[in-house]
Amino acid sequence: MLVSDIVRNNARFFGDKEAVVVPGGTTRTWSDLDTRTTRFANALLGLGLSKGDRIALFSPNCGEFLEFFFATAKSGIIGAAVNIRLSAHELSSYLAYVEPAAVLVHADLADNARTWLPDVPSARHVIGFGGDHGFALDLEQLIARASAEEPSVHVGEDDVYQLGATSGTTGIPKAAVLTHRNAIAALQNWLAELPVPEYGTALQCIPMFFNPGGPSGLHPVLLKGGRTVIPPAFDPAEFPRLVQEYRVTNTTIVPTMVQMVVSQPDVERYDFSSLRGIMSGGSPYSAGVLKRAREVLGDVLYPLYGMAESYSCGAVLRPEDQFTEGTEQQVGWLDSIGRPLTMINLRVVDPDGNDVPHDGRTSGEIWLSGPSVSPGYFNMAEETARSRAGEWFRTGDVAVIDSEGFVTIVDRLKDMIITGGINVFSIEVERVLQDHPEVEQAAVIGVPHEKWGEAIHAVVRRREGSTLTEAELVDFAAQRLSGYKKPRSVEFVDALPISATGKVLKKELRERHVRTPRHPAS
Amino acid sequence: MLVSDIVRNNARFFGDKEAVVVPGGTTRTWSDLDTRTTRFANALLGLGLSKGDRIALFSPNCGEFLEFFFATAKSGIIGAAVNIRLSAHELSSYLAYVEPAAVLVHADLADNARTWLPDVPSARHVIGFGGDHGFALDLEQLIARASAEEPSVHVGEDDVYQLGATSGTTGIPKAAVLTHRNAIAALQNWLAELPVPEYGTALQCIPMFFNPGGPSGLHPVLLKGGRTVIPPAFDPAEFPRLVQEYRVTNTTIVPTMVQMVVSQPDVERYDFSSLRGIMSGGSPYSAGVLKRAREVLGDVLYPLYGMAESYSCGAVLRPEDQFTEGTEQQVGWLDSIGRPLTMINLRVVDPDGNDVPHDGRTSGEIWLSGPSVSPGYFNMAEETARSRAGEWFRTGDVAVIDSEGFVTIVDRLKDMIITGGINVFSIEVERVLQDHPEVEQAAVIGVPHEKWGEAIHAVVRRREGSTLTEAELVDFAAQRLSGYKKPRSVEFVDALPISATGKVLKKELRERHVRTPRHPAS
Ligand SMILES: Nc1ncnc2c1ncn2[C@@H]1O[C@H](COP(=O)(O)O)[C@@H](O)[C@H]1O
Repeated sequence: MLVSDIVRNNARFFGDKEAVVVPGGTTRTWSDLDTRTTRFANALLGLGLSKGDRIALFSPNCGEFLEFFFATAKSGIIGAAVNIRLSAHELSSYLAYVEPAAVLVHADLADNARTWLPDVPSARHVIGFGGDHGFALDLEQLIARASAEEPSVHVGEDDVYQLGATSGTTGIPKAAVLTHRNAIAALQNWLAELPVPEYGTALQCIPMFFNPGGPSGLHPVLLKGGRTVIPPAFDPAEFPRLVQEYRVTNTTIVPTMVQMVVSQPDVERYDFSSLRGIMSGGSPYSAGVLKRAREVLGDVLYPLYGMAESYSCGAVLRPEDQFTEGTEQQVGWLDSIGRPLTMINLRVVDPDGNDVPHDGRTSGEIWLSGPSVSPGYFNMAEETARSRAGEWFRTGDVAVIDSEGFVTIVDRLKDMIITGGINVFSIEVERVLQDHPEVEQAAVIGVPHEKWGEAIHAVVRRREGSTLTEAELVDFAAQRLSGYKKPRSVEFVDALPISATGKVLKKELRERHVRTPRHPAS
Repeated sequence: MLVSDIVRNNARFFGDKEAVVVPGGTTRTWSDLDTRTTRFANALLGLGLSKGDRIALFSPNCGEFLEFFFATAKSGIIGAAVNIRLSAHELSSYLAYVEPAAVLVHADLADNARTWLPDVPSARHVIGFGGDHGFALDLEQLIARASAEEPSVHVGEDDVYQLGATSGTTGIPKAAVLTHRNAIAALQNWLAELPVPEYGTALQCIPMFFNPGGPSGLHPVLLKGGRTVIPPAFDPAEFPRLVQEYRVTNTTIVPTMVQMVVSQPDVERYDFSSLRGIMSGGSPYSAGVLKRAREVLGDVLYPLYGMAESYSCGAVLRPEDQFTEGTEQQVGWLDSIGRPLTMINLRVVDPDGNDVPHDGRTSGEIWLSGPSVSPGYFNMAEETARSRAGEWFRTGDVAVIDSEGFVTIVDRLKDMIITGGINVFSIEVERVLQDHPEVEQAAVIGVPHEKWGEAIHAVVRRREGSTLTEAELVDFAAQRLSGYKKPRSVEFVDALPISATGKVLKKELRERHVRTPRHPAS
């Protein structure tokens, strides 16, 4: 099955039903969408692009975004939606690697795009849409002129559908090649978990260029003839109104957004009874937020673990496993990523590739395999080989498994600190530091040390007005952690370097430290 | 993903949970089952069987049946569970075609097997199990002696996992080749519809050699660590007790069985609250049975359409589409097969291969494609080619689609009668005849006719004591059907020829008629 089958099948069986609703904008049925995306595909092919070429999309959320997914699927041209929050330099570096033959730019970002487009020499065509864009080519005109006959390109399940950018905490994003098979498998993995009614309604909350969001701007709701409601951006105050007005059944969202929604003062006034299942990824929920979210929204949250390389598939903490009260082990599962999805093989392995015991203590790297796992990075044979062990993808996430099979991430492999031959998980130390009432945010890294190999170093942003000292904070940590885990040095900063997807760039911290060590290795 | 991954993954994440429960017999955990099926696989390989060889299983439902599925999956040996209700002649004909290198026989059927085993010369080994069987080889002994190391056979997703026998209303069953990819896709299709909790409980009702049942003796419950409760046979009086005792969450069943269950006098005394989703296939529900079933069992029925060649996947009538009351069109949907499953492409096409209009009147053949559709019949290149149109499998089922996309089967292509150049659906005529209070069962066929090509002929079993005449019945039909649809002749019989799966063998009726025509073509 191909991604394009979704729109074709829905045109056949749900033709008159709504497919895309832009609040205050256009609404399209599945029949419309099918015809329009065929024309869109033909328009691209008509410009001389062919199967396997890349086309970049630079746009906020909008109806055309979904059309882009189906048009690329139908034409065999590989879609590459780019993160609009990247800097001009980051964008042109990423696109110099992806080499798109064309770039689609939303009118609202036309001026932005003009700053980096000259540095993307591969782009033979720039196509504007969504308003006054000033580019020579206009998407609507191209679509209007193109044929509505199915393109004659042969697209197979193992052909590339999109490129999924990795989050790039370690430099310019790599692009994971995502095939039609990967996409369909991912959608099925989610359908196997979430209740999704026939012609339900998905509300688009996260940016559609994200993972999940790039490719999974295609919500599983679509597979049962459902529609997507696409506001231009997420607004926690608008969310309750939209859910109520459109009888939203499903959505994809990150925990921070959920927290923002459920802390709205008037949130209880709204009707959330239409909600069936919310896909939620990126980080675990705190017990407090989850409890509150379940009170307000219902028992509809499905925290998911995954990454660009697995089309965002990995594990799920099922509702029946979400204990806000219970035994210590049960409540502890809230920090876990749960158990593997139904079409994911997941192992936690030691450096020799053997499964670690299920003791909740022995850590290892998470390896994944299954039909949603990307065949590799675009044009990066070496990086691909390094990230594999046979059929397994090495995630770089370090985790433990408990006696009941629940998997809890303890660190990123690259962020783990080896001091005196012992592994220390930066996340564990960060959690303790963040418990200090005067700490706003903390990042813990390993810095070179002659005797211990690495020493633990904390980079900390204090709350406004705080006069917390290094000695006080180290002392605080020492009372809560084994001796070898406490930071040897603390550095206070005004801001931590953050990636476009909101993650602390530890690599940058490590590099900075090597350039200007505050505590010379002693 | 492979079928064997299910048992491996469950051993990893649900190792201590129950996998198979035989009431009054053995219970095994997922860890047990993983080890046992590895030994089972090694035992078969140790006998000299290798990947691609066939092994037949001749057994009523039992724990070993499920083990057989995983052992074949792990070894790459192709499983062929056979219908134990076939005659000795049918069995040996089918097995002469399948050519199993070994046959596994349950002790209860050992004497039966001895009558046809001599006619299966390919079978180098006969292995008995489940009691005193008298064969030289014993499964338990072989398992006990075999290694628990993973076999080193390489099995891929497109390798053959099982042979699925077609229902054989048209002669000796053909064997549809079913790959690992087909099996996993089917399980995912069902998971996309049915609520299935983590470590749920499936109750095995239909024979495990059936479709669904052969391959889908693997219930989707297994993909979330669930167990299967396997009584030796279906008993409508036992069903309520078993559901209550084992807190059954899911099952697979046919409408006749449901009817038997809900007509038990004391059925309301039992607790069915554990039920989440019931897969049900083979024929549509009457409004009465469905209504009663939903009252007793809850809103948990998922009528499914499919066939051996699609790993039983095709369409589903979702609970939200089951109207026992409503508009005429809505209530009419109960006769429909609903809409395609999420990973099934389904078309209804005219003889030129064009989609028929969605007018609820124009009929065409149902074509299917998707990852659960078999690549073809075992060793039957010609039959395979005849059943395909490009990537599409031609089901031979004739259907109409209404304005809302609901598909209703009107006949089998082979059973459709062409009289005076007009198509008449045998099922439509049968329904009318069966409405006569003195008709127990009716089958309508076309018989050669010089002028019209075919004439409509009815073969009818009257209710006991009835003296209904041919003229009376033709008259009854004439009042309810257009002139060209009424039977030209009626033949009363004591019994209709029925296939092992309970379907009327119209081919046999047609052949009989050609041999001894009661009404010579005039
Ligand atoms: N839900 C259903 N409603 C009507 N006919 C069905 C249904 N499911 C299966 N069938 C019929 O059974 C055939 C498959 O038989 P088998 O190969 O034994 O699985 C199909 O081709 C249909 O003709």
